Amino acid sequence: MIRALIFDVFGTCTDWRSSVAREVAAALPGLDATAFADAWRGEYQPAMERIRSGARSYTALDDLHRENLDTVCTRFGVTPDDPADLARAWERLDPWSDVPEGLARLRRDRIVAPCSNGSIALMTRLARHAGLGWDCILGAEIARAYKPDPAVYRAACAALRLAPQEVMMVAAHNSDLAAARAEGLATAFVLRPTEHGPEQATDLAPEADWDVSVGNFTELAEALA
Amino acid sequence: MIRALIFDVFGTCTDWRSSVAREVAAALPGLDATAFADAWRGEYQPAMERIRSGARSYTALDDLHRENLDTVCTRFGVTPDDPADLARAWERLDPWSDVPEGLARLRRDRIVAPCSNGSIALMTRLARHAGLGWDCILGAEIARAYKPDPAVYRAACAALRLAPQEVMMVAAHNSDLAAARAEGLATAFVLRPTEHGPEQATDLAPEADWDVSVGNFTELAEALA
Repeated sequence: MIRALIFDVFGTCTDWRSSVAREVAAALPGLDATAFADAWRGEYQPAMERIRSGARSYTALDDLHRENLDTVCTRFGVTPDDPADLARAWERLDPWSDVPEGLARLRRDRIVAPCSNGSIALMTRLARHAGLGWDCILGAEIARAYKPDPAVYRAACAALRLAPQEVMMVAAHNSDLAAARAEGLATAFVLRPTEHGPEQATDLAPEADWDVSVGNFTELAEALA
Repeated sequence: MIRALIFDVFGTCTDWRSSVAREVAAALPGLDATAFADAWRGEYQPAMERIRSGARSYTALDDLHRENLDTVCTRFGVTPDDPADLARAWERLDPWSDVPEGLARLRRDRIVAPCSNGSIALMTRLARHAGLGWDCILGAEIARAYKPDPAVYRAACAALRLAPQEVMMVAAHNSDLAAARAEGLATAFVLRPTEHGPEQATDLAPEADWDVSVGNFTELAEALA
């Protein structure tokens, strides 16, 4: 009996690449905004890895995004007028078109919450921008750890006071689902074949027998009805 | 500039006394359900005080409610068929009539979140029952401390990445507002003259020059418009 659905957000609920490129194009006209967005996102895993490895104490993703922006600006040889505002581009991501309505439908019978590496503040503002109706905000900040650290999935279940098997992780990334399954959660794969653009080479199919594998949130709602 | 409103919940958003009495009457017919509800709530502050004083480590309010239920059942000489379910009466509180619509109006322009001593799980389920539309769940659990411990107000502002003066605490209890003001938050008093029943003797008026003092959430929305 699945009582709560917890969601990866950046690639699963929102189209971060197009949205960040749009914000970059507005703040830094004249450069390849999509290449800049990809480079910025390219700093995401290395920045979190320093925290996962213990080399650095937990630091909110808002701060990592801000630091990574400086790194990428230096590489591109550009200086935004308001770097703090540009760093908040990650609060202004647009949802994939099926998400707001699909999520509302999923929410009727089950608790829904993000289980993202974004902070509470970032997830809260992004939800308001993107029209995501959550019941609460879970994820990295309540665990002070970054996915796929098992502590994040455990903290989400503990915060809901549910057993792992009562909670389903929903993600477009096989690695996220593998980490959730290892902690005993149910798993749903949602295909997002253009998260990384038209030449995406990863996560183009479910790579294990996830409990559910679907093409969008409408199909997920139907699968769980 | 107030960017977020954080709310006391049990007496400010919901009518815990009538709601708990209703649940008690259903589970334990034949006793004075209102007296039982008052006795149960009477164990609330002493249980949290053991944690505030350091005598006990942080324990979620769900567990304190469950323990306190046993205490009060012994005193009343009763045994519920399903004590775990009755303990969850606190997830099934009805809102004061002005709250769902007033909160939705307040939410249009500002982040809204509970800053309650209830856990994330309790606040999440209560919000679904009572129709409270929150942007995120703050409060005791993210601080692992109980109001009026200053850590709770500080943790709420930190989670929102806002300065205290950008956050307004909304409560029907002067003591809650005094503690919030001491941490630099703005304050709004909402009169709930029957939280403790028709003979309520406390919090019948604002006891300081709070930034706003109103009679309900509709008036709060008007005052902040």
